Formats: sequence, structure tokens, C-alpha cells
Amino acid sequence: MSQQQQNKLKVGVLGATGTVGQRFILQLADHPQFELAALGASSSSAGKSYSAAVAGRWKQVRSIPANVAQMPVYECQPQHFAQCQVVFSGLDSGPAGPVEDAFRKAELRVFSNAKNYRTDPLCPLVVPLVNPDHFDIIPHQKSQVGTKTGFIITNANCSTTGIVVPLKALEDRFGPLDKIVVQTMQAISGAGYPGVSSLDILDNVVPYISGEEEKIEWETAKILGGMTSDKTAFDLHADSPLKVSAHCNRVPVIDGHLETVSVSFKRQPPPSVEEVKQCFREFVTVPQQLGCHSAPQQAITLHEEADRPQPKLDREWQNGAGVNVGRVRQCPVFDIKFVVLSNNVMIGAATSSVMNAEIALAKGFLTQ
Amino acid sequence: MSQQQQNKLKVGVLGATGTVGQRFILQLADHPQFELAALGASSSSAGKSYSAAVAGRWKQVRSIPANVAQMPVYECQPQHFAQCQVVFSGLDSGPAGPVEDAFRKAELRVFSNAKNYRTDPLCPLVVPLVNPDHFDIIPHQKSQVGTKTGFIITNANCSTTGIVVPLKALEDRFGPLDKIVVQTMQAISGAGYPGVSSLDILDNVVPYISGEEEKIEWETAKILGGMTSDKTAFDLHADSPLKVSAHCNRVPVIDGHLETVSVSFKRQPPPSVEEVKQCFREFVTVPQQLGCHSAPQQAITLHEEADRPQPKLDREWQNGAGVNVGRVRQCPVFDIKFVVLSNNVMIGAATSSVMNAEIALAKGFLTQ
Amino acid sequence: MSQQQQNKLKVGVLGATGTVGQRFILQLADHPQFELAALGASSSSAGKSYSAAVAGRWKQVRSIPANVAQMPVYECQPQHFAQCQVVFSGLDSGPAGPVEDAFRKAELRVFSNAKNYRTDPLCPLVVPLVNPDHFDIIPHQKSQVGTKTGFIITNANCSTTGIVVPLKALEDRFGPLDKIVVQTMQAISGAGYPGVSSLDILDNVVPYISGEEEKIEWETAKILGGMTSDKTAFDLHADSPLKVSAHCNRVPVIDGHLETVSVSFKRQPPPSVEEVKQCFREFVTVPQQLGCHSAPQQAITLHEEADRPQPKLDREWQNGAGVNVGRVRQCPVFDIKFVVLSNNVMIGAATSSVMNAEIALAKGFLTQ
Amino acid sequence: MSQQQQNKLKVGVLGATGTVGQRFILQLADHPQFELAALGASSSSAGKSYSAAVAGRWKQVRSIPANVAQMPVYECQPQHFAQCQVVFSGLDSGPAGPVEDAFRKAELRVFSNAKNYRTDPLCPLVVPLVNPDHFDIIPHQKSQVGTKTGFIITNANCSTTGIVVPLKALEDRFGPLDKIVVQTMQAISGAGYPGVSSLDILDNVVPYISGEEEKIEWETAKILGGMTSDKTAFDLHADSPLKVSAHCNRVPVIDGHLETVSVSFKRQPPPSVEEVKQCFREFVTVPQQLGCHSAPQQAITLHEEADRPQPKLDREWQNGAGVNVGRVRQCPVFDIKFVVLSNNVMIGAATSSVMNAEIALAKGFLTQ
Repeated sequence: MSQQQQNKLKVGVLGATGTVGQRFILQLADHPQFELAALGASSSSAGKSYSAAVAGRWKQVRSIPANVAQMPVYECQPQHFAQCQVVFSGLDSGPAGPVEDAFRKAELRVFSNAKNYRTDPLCPLVVPLVNPDHFDIIPHQKSQVGTKTGFIITNANCSTTGIVVPLKALEDRFGPLDKIVVQTMQAISGAGYPGVSSLDILDNVVPYISGEEEKIEWETAKILGGMTSDKTAFDLHADSPLKVSAHCNRVPVIDGHLETVSVSFKRQPPPSVEEVKQCFREFVTVPQQLGCHSAPQQAITLHEEADRPQPKLDREWQNGAGVNVGRVRQCPVFDIKFVVLSNNVMIGAATSSVMNAEIALAKGFLTQ
Repeated sequence: MSQQQQNKLKVGVLGATGTVGQRFILQLADHPQFELAALGASSSSAGKSYSAAVAGRWKQVRSIPANVAQMPVYECQPQHFAQCQVVFSGLDSGPAGPVEDAFRKAELRVFSNAKNYRTDPLCPLVVPLVNPDHFDIIPHQKSQVGTKTGFIITNANCSTTGIVVPLKALEDRFGPLDKIVVQTMQAISGAGYPGVSSLDILDNVVPYISGEEEKIEWETAKILGGMTSDKTAFDLHADSPLKVSAHCNRVPVIDGHLETVSVSFKRQPPPSVEEVKQCFREFVTVPQQLGCHSAPQQAITLHEEADRPQPKLDREWQNGAGVNVGRVRQCPVFDIKFVVLSNNVMIGAATSSVMNAEIALAKGFLTQ
Repeated sequence: MSQQQQNKLKVGVLGATGTVGQRFILQLADHPQFELAALGASSSSAGKSYSAAVAGRWKQVRSIPANVAQMPVYECQPQHFAQCQVVFSGLDSGPAGPVEDAFRKAELRVFSNAKNYRTDPLCPLVVPLVNPDHFDIIPHQKSQVGTKTGFIITNANCSTTGIVVPLKALEDRFGPLDKIVVQTMQAISGAGYPGVSSLDILDNVVPYISGEEEKIEWETAKILGGMTSDKTAFDLHADSPLKVSAHCNRVPVIDGHLETVSVSFKRQPPPSVEEVKQCFREFVTVPQQLGCHSAPQQAITLHEEADRPQPKLDREWQNGAGVNVGRVRQCPVFDIKFVVLSNNVMIGAATSSVMNAEIALAKGFLTQ
Repeated sequence: MSQQQQNKLKVGVLGATGTVGQRFILQLADHPQFELAALGASSSSAGKSYSAAVAGRWKQVRSIPANVAQMPVYECQPQHFAQCQVVFSGLDSGPAGPVEDAFRKAELRVFSNAKNYRTDPLCPLVVPLVNPDHFDIIPHQKSQVGTKTGFIITNANCSTTGIVVPLKALEDRFGPLDKIVVQTMQAISGAGYPGVSSLDILDNVVPYISGEEEKIEWETAKILGGMTSDKTAFDLHADSPLKVSAHCNRVPVIDGHLETVSVSFKRQPPPSVEEVKQCFREFVTVPQQLGCHSAPQQAITLHEEADRPQPKLDREWQNGAGVNVGRVRQCPVFDIKFVVLSNNVMIGAATSSVMNAEIALAKGFLTQ
């Protein structure tokens, strides 16, 4: 083992054979700060090598990393992850609740992509480009659940993640937003594998995704809201309530959620189109300031061409770690409207969890 | 020639080889009131039989009607249409302006799918399920352009057509609307042939269609507005201005425009979700009352399933002559939100022109 | 009950909620000779109305027929089908084996789309446009299994069905074929619902369908082969063995299997391209001669355009009951090559079963 | 200018704004041996910066390289390329003939992706992984056309390129092949931009590509054939004629041509499946031996999974510079059958031209 590897933090992946788990593995395979040390999956996979367990379900363009292919897969029980300080959870919402709690109680830091603890008043719901200050509730979470080092951090639903980045930029500069109407056109990869049947989506759009509109409407408030001064609770944007209405649609696109957004500001007159564009261009985020490995160079890439961003052309930009915004223009009904593209499998899922862990490491939460 | 054919009105099609022209031909080939008597296309097609002129470009699932295949194609000049009382225009906006005017001056009634005369203050912009009362301007139009029988009627842009049907139903029952935010997911057939390159749309969404948002925002006011009492002008909804904001997107769907809509009412409190559903179910339109051949049985088909309407499953319903509405629910920002599906190549194009002519015939405008 | 209905033969559908079962229901809902009298599905559906049982899984463009929606669904046990003379089986191959046998033993005539009995030496494998003479084994089948009226008839795999129609036409006119290389490009609907994951097929081709190549290679011999003179066995083309090689691929097409075929003839010199075309045009089949309700007007539609047939444009022709052939030309390696398109959900599945029953009825096999 | 750049060979790109031209630019932007020094396009682009000229048509996932965006675009006339020793031609076949000849006469080495000179008896048709020995005709070409340094090298049609790599491997080890039947499923990017209309290919397969089958059947013989001993002519495999039959189809896949192949060998008994697999695995090519910058590590990647290679999953492997082969198995009609995937925009187009130039440089043909 090299000196460098000895200094890396040992991490595990729960749900390692699933769609999100596969992304975690690609992100962690050669990470400078984290060493992938243990893999967990369902009991049908346990006991196999990773390549055997994932056979026929590895759907990534990149191959299984050579150093991961032969790693053993365990059941998702803390005793198999004793050497780890951190686990990333790509578990489905079915098993995620009790399993993640068991890992927390076993004093592991859990960075979860599942929805189960997003609404928990003790668990931060963190989009790393938006609200990493919410990590400050961790001491309170630990005291309440009685752990020394274990805690759970969640990241947001993929369709929420895309819009809160530009919304945060706007609130930081122009004060609170008033109303938001957002319509999503979401990629099939957002539904996991096998997920959406081809018979349902080829030559079609499905104007419904179960629970998605409610998630966007609710998560936005928690993410954009602040915390109480004693760092024991989230204020859910309660002092300046946002009205959010979402229309969610599934479209035949492999990766990349496109969303159209109309917003109005509390401040009147509202900022001009040019001021909004400049705000987006100049938005700098905490993981960029901390020099995090997975942080994008540009948090928001502003497109000036009339027909961009597009999923096919822009989703891979910056390895999917930033957000693309375009078509910023005046809205005849609200103040400003624009288009957002975010890579749902990167910043919308695994990249957010890993970036959250990088921020937490930089802020000292992984070594306390 | 049978007795029945003798009683039919002779009609022609301009732009007969194009995408919309092909749809006109299918609609008119066995129409009970209209007899397809002359075909016009560009000079490169003139002189050929229709089947020869359209070879390699006929993209319909149904074959070229046998009685049309051998019809000669002429240039789009009125002398070749002397036997016709009516022409349907599927011309591109390039040639449509002067050609349609020449046919009007030659005393033909022109029912046009082109955009050129939609904004003309003398020309009705008629969605047959919404505002056929706008035909009342025809006498004024004729007097102003100096014709005895010739006039031009336009139908709306395909993405406007879908939404104005439910909006009209709402205004008729609940009074004027206040604000509307609409997002479209439009089929590739809306762009004609060859139209959208496959490299631009496979595994992609393009969040921009040139001029489309402005058309929706403007056309809605003309269509939903009334007329002055002397029947010489449209009031453009000016006494109760609507604010409309549109986000237009092209999606990889062959036929069928899906649109998500959020609306608020001037009347407060607004109608309930159940009242709105009932309003949609009970909406009856003029072409239905007149018993027009192309009219749908149900103007608005209300879907109660959570994930309907969908383009692939619902676009062929009623031969695409009606509109599908679903997911009627409360909007956290406005009052009500819902989803609309309309068949852009049927009610969104050729069917509207033909239904307009059927209404005009029933109202006596084609025999004056 | 009308006089006409009294004269209809009562039929049932097994696997009524599945993809093939839905097609059976559409075909039988207003059939002039058969009356849909009983529906069977899995125990989770039993006890519900059909519309309740199929909710969320009805994926047809046409609505559930009004007279079927409220029919009760039973488990697939013969006692619930006592009033029926015939059942059509759209069962999956898992349950099909014992269930179909139970119905046969209960003296029902079973027309099955499942693969289980295709290789059974007592069961005919009948493509109705090709080998309905194989019904002649029915008396022997009944005597061997000890039934008076009950028997099982299978139809072929959807990709086999397409090619054997033109191959039969060729053999009938030009004598035995020698070698065949066929490559399929098969629609996603061939895999049932949910079937192929959209993540596997959007922007992709999968060059493998489990078991499909073997089926084509084997079924072709049984279908194109004759019977022993005592009508107790199939000769599997054994006196003139065909060599068949198949390459099977799944493509992102909703309906319609496209297949490219190269063939060589035993007879040398082989027929010319023009002779082959004429042979295809003139091919007349038994169900056409018997005037069967579901028979196509033209068994093989020959396309002369360079780029036809195509799934999107030609699969609905004749309601999918015939086969489309195009690009007939010389093969630099074999004698002749051409392209075949067949509608896998119509002639490739339910339509074949129903047409088989129509033939059997006309030949007296359903009333003996 | 750095020392390294001074030592690079200056190269130009003809047809720089087209689909293939864009790929050339990405390949050459940071090439270790070639310096992109001049860009040529049509007169409508001439005089603009490259980014202005290509605006709205740049369809690559990677951005325009920063050092290319501001380069001026010239007409495709030799005087604008005086500083270059080599030009790469991505011209359409319309202008390619006279333009490429003019550049050759101006003493430039032309590496062309166009079809015009592929059949020229003086011009090599070189797939770099297969027959770079055909460069040996260059002295004869120069002497015949009267140039000192100028010559034209072509690379093959994209669908030919994929199959000749494994065919060459087989012939090298097992001797001449006898018969080949190949079916292609070709990506839309092979038709350029805008190329295939989305209305022609969404939910569809088109079983015809103009001229494509003839190209495969003819080019294969030239590429796999040898040369006369005096290096003045190609023998077109004439001493051991191959019979090749191709069925070409366009499928809704963005990049990556999939081809199914059945082959028979002159040598009987033929090699076993295992011997063929080993032959593919061990195939080593000239550009690999020469250490060419663009050469793949593995010329043929052999897949053992039942359903691979697939365009979506495997086309980016090795940056598309090698060929993927899978499903090697016995053919019931011929000897062996298998599946080939090649990246049509990489090894099938620009990568081949650049790799050809790298080989030519290594062999001294660019400095003579």
C-alpha cells in the first residue's frame, strides 16, 4: 500500500450494483482523498466478486475499474464496513431507511442519495453548490441520536438539484424570490434500471412522475431556507415563503434533466435580464472555494445561443458537475424566465454525494 | 359523375405535396361535402401526376388515395383552379402571402394553414372549436379588399390550438382568465419535412422553436378575444388583458403536442378542481352543434388516470379532431394546472382548416 | 341476445391482461364468427372486472372495447370456460405448458401464441398464410391424448412468421430452397411489457435476443416441411434439408419486424428477379381462398420503391395481416436477396392465432 | 512559437465546417505531430472566424478548441494553404474531386475521407488497421500525375471499415475467405448534418442507403487485395475472388455502425470458433507497431458477453479507434458468424485519415 493510499479515507458504497451505485464506483475508483474499501448490495449479490454481481447490469460507457472488479460484495451490514469511516448510499428507498440508520448507529458517516431522510428535521438536505452550511446541524443530529461520529447527510432529488443552483444565485444577489413555476423534462436514467419500459417512452412523453412534483415543491424550501441561530433546525424559508409549482414530465432522453423556469422576485422592480445573466456568470460556490476535487470550474455555465442548453450537447460539460443555464429572458407573466440543464446522474445524484463528502472532509466533519 | 358528386363543392389544395398538403388530401379524398378538384404545388412539381410529384416525400401511413394519385399538379396560379370555389392552403410562409392574396382576388375562398395573414386585422384567426364567430368579419374583409366572394381565413399555430380549447371552455363558464404559463413539448412533425434533423433530436430535447413563444402569446389574445359590435375588428381581449408566458420545446415525438398549463382566474375565489373538470367534460362547440363532418364527438376528452394524456396513446383518439386534457389539479402558485394533448397534424393543422370550411359552409359563407 | 350472437362460437382468452391478450381482445371484440365469452388471467387479476385488472397496463391506441371492459376476469382454469368451444392463449411460456394442456383435456380447442407446444410432434405449428394443411394432424393428436374435441394449435414465433410467407411462395413456385441467411431487426413490442428497458434500447441496437436465432432456424423447417402421408407426423423438410442461419437484433422500433434475407435455390439456374417478384405478387393463400374474416387482401405486398418496406410506414397496411416485401434483387453470394416487414403484434402474434381458428372453423375442425 | 510546435508538420483541413471536418479539428487540435495551420470551407464561410463560420452547426459534445475558434476560414484553394505539407479532406463528394486534385497538383499530400478517388487505380484506399502497405503505390502515383510531393490517399467508407478489420485478421491467419454476407445497422451520423430527417428514422429502420451496398462489396476487394510486385497497381483480390453480399440499413442510433457477418473460408475444414476468437484477440496492426499516436491499444476488442458489442455501450471504447467484435459462433450456412461494431465518426472517418497520415509520416512519405 502506497503512502498516499494510507492517507486516504476509507469509504464504502451501499447499493453498489444499482445505477447510482455504479456511478459512485466510477467517481471513487481513483479519488485523491477517498479509497473505495468495501461494497454492499442485496443478499443475492453478497459473496460474489463485484464484476460477477453486476454482470448484465453494468450500463456505463466506462468499464468497471480494474481495481474494483474483483472486490468482494457484502450484505449491507455495518460489520462488513468496519474499516470505513464513510459510506455512500445508492440504496433504493425500500431498504434505505433502516440500513442507513444502522450504519449511522455504527458510527459511520452516511452520504445518502435516497429520499428517506430528506424530510427528517435532523438531517441536512444538501446540494453542495447551494447549502453546505446546513452541515452545521451535524453536532445536534449526533447528540439527538446518540452517536459520536455517525450521521446521515442526504442530497436532493435530481430534478430539484438543477433548479436550486440558479435560484440560490438569484436569492444571494437579489433577495428572496416570490413565485416559481417550473416544468421538467426528465431523462429516463432518473428512474433507475430497468426503470422506464421502452414501450412507455419511445415516441412519447409521460406527463407524470410519481411524487416528483411534491418533492420539488417541498425540497426547494428546505434547501433555500436557512437555519435557526442555534443550529438545531432548518427554517424552511418560513420567514419569506416561496410559492413553487412544478409540472414533471418524462422524456425519451438518456441523461440530463431539462427544466424551464419562470420566477418572480419580492424586490420590485426586479433585476434586469442582463443583471440576472451576470449574477449567474459570477456565482461562486463553497466547494469551489474549498478546492474540492469534484467541484466544477464554473458552477453555472451561461449559454447565450438561442437553443442551448440541450441534454445531448451539454450534459457532459465539466463532467456533469455544474449546471447549465440558457435563454434568460423576460417573462410576460413573472419577471424572468430561463432554461436549466443538469446532469441527473452526476450533479443530480452521485456527484452531489461525493462533493458533499469532500466539503465535509474539508470542514472537519469526517475527522471529529 | 354521380349525383352526389355534382352537389359537392369543388375545392383545391395549394402546397399539395408538402406535409400539411398531404393531410389535406387524406381529409378531402372522400369528404361528403367537398370534392377535391385541383392540386397546386411548386413549379418543379407542376405538370406531373400527384403520385409522381410526391414520390419519396409521401410520409403518411395511409396510401395516396386512388382517385388522387393520377390527378395533375399545377402551379399555384388561380387560372388552374377556375372550377373551384374553395382552396385549402398548406403553403410555406415564403410563398403563402402573395399566392393566397392572388387566389382571394380571383374570388376564391382561401382556408390557410400558413401564418402570413394570422395577424392581419381583416383576417379571422379561427380555431374551429373556439371562435368560429370570428367569421362575421368576412363581409367587412370582402368590402375592404374589393372582392365579391373571395376571402382568407387562417387557422392557428398548432401549439396555440391545443391550449385555447380548454381556455375557451374556462372563460365561457368562469369568466376571464388572468395569467397563463404554458410549457410545450412539441412533436417533430410540427416542423414539416425534412424539418428537424435526427442528429438534433434523437436522445435530446431542444428548448427553443423560432418564433413559437411569441405566436402563442399573441394568437391566444386574438382567438379568445371578441369582436367590435359592428363586426369590423377584433378586440384582442383588450378589455380584459390576458398575460400569457410560453416556454416552447421540441421533443422526440412524431405526432402530438403535449402542453402543461397553469392558469389563474380574474374571479376569486376560483372554481374548484371538480368544477373545472365538469366544465371540460361539458364543453360543446359550434362545429359539433352544426353537425360538421370533421367535428369530434367530444371537444375535450378529460382523462382521470394520473399519467394521461400521452402522445403515443391518445393522439389518434377521435381521429385527432378533439383535444385531450388530464391531470387537472390545484396549482400552488396559480389557481389550476393541467396537461393538454392535441394532435398537431390534425386539429393543429389540416383538420382545423377543413372544419373551418365546413362551418363556413353551414353558415352560408361559401355560397354567398 | 341477437340471433347473430347466438350463432357465434363462444371463445375465451387466456392471459387476457398481457400484451398479446390485449390484441386478442381487440381482434375478437366485434368478430363476426366468434363471441368473446370468458377471460382468464393470473390469480392477482381474478375476480376483478377486465378494465380494473388491466388498469395501467392497457397500452393499445384503441380503447378497451365497451363490451369487454366490465367482463369478469377468472383464473385460467377450465371450469370458468365451460361455455367456450375455443380458447386463445396469450400466456407466457412459464404457465402456458400445463394450463394449455388442462384446457385441451377439458375438450377445448386451444390456439396458442406461446412457444411451449411448437416443438411437440403432435402439435401443428401453423402460420395461417403458409401451412394450414398441418391441421390435418388434429385427429391423430386427439387420438393420442385421448380427447374428443380438445386439441392444441400453435402459431410461430413473430420473427419466423415474417420470412416463411415469402419463402413458402418461392418453394411453391420454384421448388426447394437450399440456403437462407436472415438478419432480423425486431421491434420492442416483441418482448412484451414492460419488456425492454428504455435504457437498453434508446440510441442503441442489441445484437442478441435469447433463443430467437434457434427458433427461426428450427421453426422454418417444421413450417415449410410437409407431413407424412398418414397425417400422423411432420417431415421437417427432411427430404430436402434447408440450411438456415439467423442473426437477431433488437432495434428501437415500436412495432414491426424488419428482416433482410438472402436465399439460394436447389434449382439452377435460379429464377430471375422478375420471376421472383411476380411469384410474390401472385401468391394466394388458404385463408384468402376460404374468405376468412382476418385474411389480408394481398398475402404479400411487393414494394418497388428503393427504400421500402419500412416499419413506421408499412406495418399498419391491411391491418398488419399480410407481409411486406421489397428490394428484391440479385445476391452476389446467393441467388436472390430481399427485405421483409411483418407486423409482429398482428400477423406475428394474435392475428395468426385468430386466422388459424377461422381456417379451422371453415375446415370443420371446430364443430367435430 | 514553442520548439515543439516548430517541429510539427503544418496541416490544413478542407470542409472544416462539416461533420467530418469538425472531427478532424478535434483530432488535430492538440496532436503531437501535426499543427493545424489552415482551414478551408465553402465560399459562404470564407472570411469568417471558424467559430462564426460553424455557428449553429457545431454538433460535438466537446467545445470548439480555443486555439481553433478564432482561426480564419479560407476558400478551398491551394494558395491559402501554402504553409501546409498535408491537408485532410472532409469535403462532400460534390466538390471533392477537382478540389483534392488541385491540392495534389499544388504538391500537398491529401488524406481524403471523400469517395471520389477510392476507385482510382492510382490512389490507395487505406484502412489504417488493415492495408497501409498500399501506400507503396505513392511513388507511382506521383510519377503518373507529375508531382514531386503531392498525392492523394483515401480511406474507406465507414461501413466497409468496420468489417475489413476482422476479415483481414482472418485472412492473415487462415488464408483467403470465400463468401461473406454482411448486414449493416448504420448510425444516423454516417449521413452527415442535417442528413437523415427525424421523421424518417424515429420509430423506424430504413432498409436502404444509396450506393452503400455496392461500396462495401467493391471496397472490400480493393482493401483486402494485394499489389502487383512492381507496386504500380492493386490486384483487387483477383487471384482469390471474394464474394461479398451486403444488406445496408439505417437505424435510429446516433453513432456506431453495427454489422452482422457470416463468412466461409477457402480452407476446409475451417478454423474453430475458439481459433477465430484467438485470432481476433491477437491481431496486431501496423499503426500499433509504429506507435502511432491515434492507434488503439487493441485493434480488435473481443466481447464474450452474449449481447455485446452494442453501439451505446461500446462505441467510445479506445476513443473509437479500434473495432469491437462479439458473438463469434458457428454459422449453420457458412462457417463462422459474428457481430462487429465500429465507431463510424472515428475509425470510420476522421480517425482513419489522421492515422493514415501518422503511418505515412512514420514511413517517410510526408518528408520525401
